[in-house]
Amino acid sequence: MEKLKPRTLSGFMELLPAPQQQMERMMEILRKNYALFGFTPLDTPVIESAEVLLAKGGGETEKQIYRFQKGDSDLALRFDLTVPLAKYVALHYNELSFPFRRFQIGKVYRGERAQRGRFREFYQADIDVIGDGKLDIVNDAEIPSIIYRTFRDFGLKRFQIRVNNRKILNGFYAMLGLTEKSGDIMRTVDKLDKIGPEKVKLILVEDFAVAESDADEILRFIAIKGTNEEVLASLEGYRGRSEMFDRGLDELTTVTKYLADFGVPAENFAVDLTIARGLDYYTGTVYETTLLDHPEIGSVCSGGRYDNLAEYYTDKQLPGVGISIGLTRLFYVLGEQGLLNPALPTAPADVLILPMSGDLAPAVALATTLRDAGIRTQLYNEQKKFKQKIGYADKLGIPYVVFLGEDEIKAGVVSCKDMATGAQQTLSPADVAAYIRAGLVEKNAGSVILEK
Amino acid sequence: MEKLKPRTLSGFMELLPAPQQQMERMMEILRKNYALFGFTPLDTPVIESAEVLLAKGGGETEKQIYRFQKGDSDLALRFDLTVPLAKYVALHYNELSFPFRRFQIGKVYRGERAQRGRFREFYQADIDVIGDGKLDIVNDAEIPSIIYRTFRDFGLKRFQIRVNNRKILNGFYAMLGLTEKSGDIMRTVDKLDKIGPEKVKLILVEDFAVAESDADEILRFIAIKGTNEEVLASLEGYRGRSEMFDRGLDELTTVTKYLADFGVPAENFAVDLTIARGLDYYTGTVYETTLLDHPEIGSVCSGGRYDNLAEYYTDKQLPGVGISIGLTRLFYVLGEQGLLNPALPTAPADVLILPMSGDLAPAVALATTLRDAGIRTQLYNEQKKFKQKIGYADKLGIPYVVFLGEDEIKAGVVSCKDMATGAQQTLSPADVAAYIRAGLVEKNAGSVILEK
Repeated sequence: MEKLKPRTLSGFMELLPAPQQQMERMMEILRKNYALFGFTPLDTPVIESAEVLLAKGGGETEKQIYRFQKGDSDLALRFDLTVPLAKYVALHYNELSFPFRRFQIGKVYRGERAQRGRFREFYQADIDVIGDGKLDIVNDAEIPSIIYRTFRDFGLKRFQIRVNNRKILNGFYAMLGLTEKSGDIMRTVDKLDKIGPEKVKLILVEDFAVAESDADEILRFIAIKGTNEEVLASLEGYRGRSEMFDRGLDELTTVTKYLADFGVPAENFAVDLTIARGLDYYTGTVYETTLLDHPEIGSVCSGGRYDNLAEYYTDKQLPGVGISIGLTRLFYVLGEQGLLNPALPTAPADVLILPMSGDLAPAVALATTLRDAGIRTQLYNEQKKFKQKIGYADKLGIPYVVFLGEDEIKAGVVSCKDMATGAQQTLSPADVAAYIRAGLVEKNAGSVILEK
Repeated sequence: MEKLKPRTLSGFMELLPAPQQQMERMMEILRKNYALFGFTPLDTPVIESAEVLLAKGGGETEKQIYRFQKGDSDLALRFDLTVPLAKYVALHYNELSFPFRRFQIGKVYRGERAQRGRFREFYQADIDVIGDGKLDIVNDAEIPSIIYRTFRDFGLKRFQIRVNNRKILNGFYAMLGLTEKSGDIMRTVDKLDKIGPEKVKLILVEDFAVAESDADEILRFIAIKGTNEEVLASLEGYRGRSEMFDRGLDELTTVTKYLADFGVPAENFAVDLTIARGLDYYTGTVYETTLLDHPEIGSVCSGGRYDNLAEYYTDKQLPGVGISIGLTRLFYVLGEQGLLNPALPTAPADVLILPMSGDLAPAVALATTLRDAGIRTQLYNEQKKFKQKIGYADKLGIPYVVFLGEDEIKAGVVSCKDMATGAQQTLSPADVAAYIRAGLVEKNAGSVILEK
């Protein structure tokens, strides 16, 4: 029979078993942390009506979207988890309690030009808090504190959650009489890290006809640096010239204060006036998160405050604040940078039992004892030479092998080999469970990410 | 602004938060059990090249598939997890160790005509063991034992894993000289439960020109009933007339013996000669699983042994055995039948902390203590009346509310209310964690499924 060459589409991450185990650990940490902060898991469809998904319409998104007909239906794959959330909250408004806190970890689809480290199918891991009518500013500080705890659980230390407020930016541009150009200006300023201040000024002056003095003023403004207290103090100097600005400054000051209350260490967050987020969507607090040793990869976790989650679907005023981790890209970058802890077990099982052929009952009984103790246990069911069985455990990195021969069964003991040290012990089934558990605690003690 | 009516496509399950929590419990049980048996998690793309996905081609599948162009690419959404597994194993053959045991819980897509209880996007929860060249028959018995443990953990008792062997069926039809018609015959016999023996006979005779005496012989054969021992004994009467049959009978006898070794109680499995599985794919053992009180919903978990997983992609002989739970449909049916335990908490949080406004630090410190103890803790961040705050916890079913007023903070205690009983206690932060944990153990003690 003619064979078809098997392949996976480019831009689609398909991991081998060992890295998949590392990815699963990260997902588990996300699920656990998001749940510990009182977010409820949601799972919306991957396919939505194109009309619903593109209610906002236009922009880059529409070009990238996977859109197709099936029968009479015009369908599309979700390109983020926020639009489906907006639809969900509008659709189920009467059945939800507000503030509505949800997390969703799911795949989204963007048909971008394939390039290294860019994915067409990728996981986003989102949390959002949605209010009915209003939502307290305290939430704007809690959101980054959850990211802080989650990243810390990943094992990351050298990261910084950068915070700004769109009202400050909008208010500042209003002071200069540049409100109408503020979108263009902010998108340009957003590129500061990548292209530098001179190029930014050039674009502002030449492409957007900003007066040179205003461009200088803008660059001076976004160059305000220092500790959070210093930045906030500098901003106080602009107070009184724009109501919008003053409100934004109040919000940012409050968020900064609460961030400390929420236990985020000073080194892990920074007020940064260059953060604007490209999206019009945001109306207040905005976040970006960078790995301090890898600024070149940009933000790995971004979000912010919006006034009106579902304005395309409902008249209800639904303000919210949320953040999204680009999980697939983050995982890819961590792998590329060699930051994934290689010491953590990635085997499919913690222990491999080599049973005698014939009566399987004693091996199954032992496996049940081990599984009841939470130990991932594989029975080796194949008729192979002893050396091949051991080789199998070795190749997969299964940390323990248990032999259950006729002698052991008669004596009511098992023989357990630690594959790392080669040490072999004869123990009762209960003791072998305790022995392996203790060993696993040690082997699993490290974090997923190991910074150099 | 004109609003677009939000909607979710028909045939797509989108759960409200409370049932989603029940679904998450089932998924967690699946992930845990599959991992405890030494299966490694895989996550393949939802989108594949249409050419790759349809390598086998033809059939019902092709009509139902979601297939579309993007740029020059002919793409399709996976319609099961088995074809992607075949591709994966063929593609990564050199990097895998065999037997390769993987589980995957993922969404698959079939554009079926929408009808109640039928889904176009649904989860399958699969396990498969793939051998390189050969794979021991012991695996055919271990697979249903894993399903037994998983269903038992769900809380199901009244279910039966029905086992048969395609070689017995093929051998039997060979005895009657009906090999060429065996596919048609088996697909017809497969409908026995639904349409009854007379209708089956009619179809066999009229549509497929089976001699009436042969049709009677077939109906007698598939009517063989009794305990597993009785069925196997009846089958022994046919031995010696077909090599294929004899091999099948040996396999089925072995699997039946090992199933007992694997601890599957007699009442939860049955040798059943009517089970054939429609798919040509299977070559030996086949499984179906029925809920005894709901035979009308058909099999909720099916699978079997195949000789050649990836024959469309590789010359390598890759025999395997696997099983798939139709999770979305199972969950839907359980809900419809009222079998989901309503006593289990479905709230997004275990405890709601009502902090004093102003200094959040004490509330955050308490929340951290609780979260470190594994308690899902939400800070209530809104400025609302006390009654509204309590109402929020009540409406969501959050089992505990903790008050942290100035008096409590000064005294270093917290006040904790059990929402079910109304009992209120004043405790130290450490004691409140222990108190809530103990309460949660009790509240979470039940199983997801509660049979009546």
